[in-house]
Amino acid sequence: MHGELQESMHTLAKPTTTFLEAVITPTELKKLSIEELNSLGQEIRQEIVCSLAKTGGHLASNLGVVEITIALHKVFNSPNDQILWDVGHQAYVHKMLTGRRDKFNTLRQFKGLSGFISPFESEHDSFIAGHSSTSISLAVGMVLARDHLKQDRKVIAVIGDGGLTGGMALEAINHLGHIQKDVIIILNDNEMSISENVGGFSQYMKRIRETFFYKDIKRKIDFIEDKLDQANLNPAVKDLIQIVKKEAKDRFDTPGIVFEKLGVNYSGPIDGHDLSAVIKALNAVKNKSTPQIIHIITRKGKGYAPAEADSIKYHGVPAFALEPALTEKAEPSVVSVAPKPKTYSDVFTEALIDIAKIEPNMVAITPATAEGSGLVKFGKVYPDRFFDVAICEQHAVTMAAGMAKLGVKPVVSIYSTFLQRAMDQIIHDVAIMNLPVVFGIDRGGLVEDGETHQGVFDISFLRAVPNFTVLAPKDARELRNMLYTAIKESKGPVAIRFPREKAVNSQALKGPEDFELIDLTKWQVLTPGLPGHGVLLAYGGMVETVIQVLPALSDQGLEPMVVAARSAKPLDEALLRGLLLDGGNKIVTLEEGQLSGGFGAAVLEYLSSLKVANPAGKYADIVNLGIPDRFVEHGARPILLDEVGLSPARVTQFLLSYLKA
Amino acid sequence: MHGELQESMHTLAKPTTTFLEAVITPTELKKLSIEELNSLGQEIRQEIVCSLAKTGGHLASNLGVVEITIALHKVFNSPNDQILWDVGHQAYVHKMLTGRRDKFNTLRQFKGLSGFISPFESEHDSFIAGHSSTSISLAVGMVLARDHLKQDRKVIAVIGDGGLTGGMALEAINHLGHIQKDVIIILNDNEMSISENVGGFSQYMKRIRETFFYKDIKRKIDFIEDKLDQANLNPAVKDLIQIVKKEAKDRFDTPGIVFEKLGVNYSGPIDGHDLSAVIKALNAVKNKSTPQIIHIITRKGKGYAPAEADSIKYHGVPAFALEPALTEKAEPSVVSVAPKPKTYSDVFTEALIDIAKIEPNMVAITPATAEGSGLVKFGKVYPDRFFDVAICEQHAVTMAAGMAKLGVKPVVSIYSTFLQRAMDQIIHDVAIMNLPVVFGIDRGGLVEDGETHQGVFDISFLRAVPNFTVLAPKDARELRNMLYTAIKESKGPVAIRFPREKAVNSQALKGPEDFELIDLTKWQVLTPGLPGHGVLLAYGGMVETVIQVLPALSDQGLEPMVVAARSAKPLDEALLRGLLLDGGNKIVTLEEGQLSGGFGAAVLEYLSSLKVANPAGKYADIVNLGIPDRFVEHGARPILLDEVGLSPARVTQFLLSYLKA
Repeated sequence: MHGELQESMHTLAKPTTTFLEAVITPTELKKLSIEELNSLGQEIRQEIVCSLAKTGGHLASNLGVVEITIALHKVFNSPNDQILWDVGHQAYVHKMLTGRRDKFNTLRQFKGLSGFISPFESEHDSFIAGHSSTSISLAVGMVLARDHLKQDRKVIAVIGDGGLTGGMALEAINHLGHIQKDVIIILNDNEMSISENVGGFSQYMKRIRETFFYKDIKRKIDFIEDKLDQANLNPAVKDLIQIVKKEAKDRFDTPGIVFEKLGVNYSGPIDGHDLSAVIKALNAVKNKSTPQIIHIITRKGKGYAPAEADSIKYHGVPAFALEPALTEKAEPSVVSVAPKPKTYSDVFTEALIDIAKIEPNMVAITPATAEGSGLVKFGKVYPDRFFDVAICEQHAVTMAAGMAKLGVKPVVSIYSTFLQRAMDQIIHDVAIMNLPVVFGIDRGGLVEDGETHQGVFDISFLRAVPNFTVLAPKDARELRNMLYTAIKESKGPVAIRFPREKAVNSQALKGPEDFELIDLTKWQVLTPGLPGHGVLLAYGGMVETVIQVLPALSDQGLEPMVVAARSAKPLDEALLRGLLLDGGNKIVTLEEGQLSGGFGAAVLEYLSSLKVANPAGKYADIVNLGIPDRFVEHGARPILLDEVGLSPARVTQFLLSYLKA
Repeated sequence: MHGELQESMHTLAKPTTTFLEAVITPTELKKLSIEELNSLGQEIRQEIVCSLAKTGGHLASNLGVVEITIALHKVFNSPNDQILWDVGHQAYVHKMLTGRRDKFNTLRQFKGLSGFISPFESEHDSFIAGHSSTSISLAVGMVLARDHLKQDRKVIAVIGDGGLTGGMALEAINHLGHIQKDVIIILNDNEMSISENVGGFSQYMKRIRETFFYKDIKRKIDFIEDKLDQANLNPAVKDLIQIVKKEAKDRFDTPGIVFEKLGVNYSGPIDGHDLSAVIKALNAVKNKSTPQIIHIITRKGKGYAPAEADSIKYHGVPAFALEPALTEKAEPSVVSVAPKPKTYSDVFTEALIDIAKIEPNMVAITPATAEGSGLVKFGKVYPDRFFDVAICEQHAVTMAAGMAKLGVKPVVSIYSTFLQRAMDQIIHDVAIMNLPVVFGIDRGGLVEDGETHQGVFDISFLRAVPNFTVLAPKDARELRNMLYTAIKESKGPVAIRFPREKAVNSQALKGPEDFELIDLTKWQVLTPGLPGHGVLLAYGGMVETVIQVLPALSDQGLEPMVVAARSAKPLDEALLRGLLLDGGNKIVTLEEGQLSGGFGAAVLEYLSSLKVANPAGKYADIVNLGIPDRFVEHGARPILLDEVGLSPARVTQFLLSYLKA
């Protein structure tokens, strides 16, 4: 993707924008002819490629929906009609056509345009989106509300083939099939994105595309009929043949029989880059009073020369690029000579590859984030021990529980934000049984994608679950050893969370011979500090922040103790108890997660439990630094961390003020 | 159900148990002939009815699976073969046949037999179950693990038609259809339990049962063929007809075409009370190497005279009795003359019915717990404003968000334990958009069903989510006013949790004219107490416990302040601040939820935040009472509350010891 974008800078001429300049809102768009709309589409493609080459973003998926988006705005009346974009990272075209073209240079930047759908940005963005598979449920809710309120509007859900694998999308289709309301589902099936491992449903759709088998049957019946015409048949038999033909047509002669059986009318497949065809298909269902699904085939990256020229590379687009695909991100176009520093995701994957060599029963599971988490590499080395289950967080976790029950050692790689989809499975299927499932929680903490993707609830949620061990490493080596120890020795569930960040101390890593069993729940005193200068209990990535701020503190005469608290659950009570029983101590906890119920709260809870025995005693004071009680917007990590008070500068400022008081 | 059971005590003779006594484990069962197994089935039915008349339990669902269970143990070899019972409340027969018959008099009692599947109880219980729709994911995990470990065993998932509506079951089928492993799915389709509102999928299955349409097609093709034989046709045409027939058969000639299209081989439907047929069907798939689903039709309550005689009543079995159906519980057989006291569920439903009269845009949503939550009554009064979406917690919450966006006022009724299934939807679809969705969280706290159903995580989880208001009423009247105020005035999401308990002060309730707008986040000082005697901050149901223990405290000279803390988020900081700034105060928080991150933790966190400005100040001491960090087993609520230290006796004991120290 990176290479493609760079190439685009050379191969694309300065874009023309005749129509794009005229179309400020969908009102202008509606006046254009099909030919003019096609030209508009070309202009949009050029502008997106040029624009994203600078800001980065979801290139291919947006190039794929140019015609669908234009057609939606031609046929429907946004914002009165509600267009619900599933996942919401494919809405750049929609944004351009709804008054936000001039802000594209701020895409995904702090206070700039969101990379996802955002109702805070425009009335044309009906509903927030960032996670997958929500749009059909929202649409069902909206048509029911519309009818209750006697409003007059249409509701359209645009969902990718990947999004359909999510259980809640299937729940919603099931319900829609019952209530028979006029939700229109646009199934944006971007063909190449479907890999073998998406599941039975997508293989079914693949068959729809590959062999329009019903046409074969029809041809054969026609042929028989033809022959029969030449034979001297009884008219009753001829009638019967007609009846069979009609029944076969009604019942089977549709590639969308699965949808039809579930009560949703199917039309398609349709070429999603044939604007006239898409408009015609939308018009055909626009005024129907029953559920409709229009199956539209699109190509990711459509119209972008480098992608179309390099078809092998195109085929190699990762299976789950549909996931809010951090995989599609363009790096800044500066060419760097130094080797790319390893991220925690890289270190995690490499550790798993190394551990797999020595632990033959370890397997890795991912719910459609193989690319973003780096686990694709593991899958290449150990294809038989790698399970990408598509966008199915619930299934991924419970499947892991089933595996662990029989003696396999599963590692579930999951983003913190998607872990929210599997909390019940974590409690009900993993924790009650106390099974040794290891969770590698990627993107724990703030991410640039904004509210929908912040990985800030995992510490609070997991800490509340009995039998769990909740860990965060301070650096690359500790991550490796945590994983190694958890997989080798743990008898119950272990979560290891790490941020979306370059790994600390990754340069010193060695191979499998370098693993070390560690005490997972023992905290480490990194610097003893001076008495009365305070104690900093830092969790995970905040250890590095604290290390960075020590010189500035020292400059002001402050030499606090620094403790790397690798385990938020259980706490290292032996170490902590001593610190808490010292009435002169000022303790500051630091974590990159919600303050509510987080690591800091754990320390407070422990202190409170100590006070039962001796309420009159003198105890340390504790204050907590973490993420305050609000949703954090999008923007670069350093900006966001500063904004919530967790950047080195803000931490320094706080510590100087609090510890010196 | 209650009436039926009482009747059974009169109509059933003392059961014979010839075969039941001989069958201690599946080993003995395997030796019996079909005829003997049928007799065994009859004995089991009698024993279950008699036994449950005493202990209560899931009667109808267990009577429905007698033959399926016997057949499974005849054909497969538990515990080596893994039988996974979805939801797990239909496993009484299985328990009887796996060495636990003698413990049936302890069913669902503290330290007695669990009402659900429990591996802690027997090696024949492969995996914990209590929540719905997990069995296929577990089975997929187990076959993958088996193959990795080169074990030799079969894996069978037994799932009801209700369970199939859960998104994660569909995720698992989708995955299974891809990997093509030999999971055997027994679809226990108990016919009557399917109501119109389960969704498109169950309507599809209903059609399978009602019209075996494929037989029609086949008959017609055969007829044509027959006629053609008489005509003088070219052999090529004849061959072609054979090909068409074969293709039609392969592709369409199955009622389970939806499953087939998803890659799972379908057989059925089969009469689930014809033991020979079920055994034959199991044997037919036993050694297949591909995924199999066997569609077995059963009748809930099969073989139990009162249910069979009263077919209207039988038809009236609530739609979602498949849900871990607390609805099926038998009351103790003592006949009570006094009117049944109202539960919080009753008060909740009646309040919604009253509010609906004055708030026309309010609607109610339930994910298959209409019966247990009492919401069935609301549905009868307002059928157009009542949405039972089947076992689809995720869809229910996001659908509510879609409704709220357009101006409807949805109330989602959900059990605390099932709320865990929708945490992501609560964050991503409700809270980020700050939509006014009201959550009525039923069974918040401990329930008699055990580990899988404890409603103990909701306070911690919801408190971590920005924009949420997290409430718990102290009595019936406050529940009504909270609901009324939240629906009328709230601009964001509000959760109101209440225990599975008789409602306090329900006798004084009046109708809709009696509603009062209240300040949702203002706590109430119930008794001012004496200085230095401590402060009790009680959340929700714990207020009543505190009121009950006051006399015992007073007897010992303790007169603490009692505060009813109706809101765990936000806290009543104005009130709390004053209490915290008093260095002599001993504050005790009380809640029926996990201590980790709960209401008590909120008070600790607030105190900690106060200390930033003035760390040297004198502050109150706080200790937290709540549920400790472990899973709580099954048993009567008073026993469980005592066990975790929250019974009146244990609270008294603690307060006397702590406050007097």
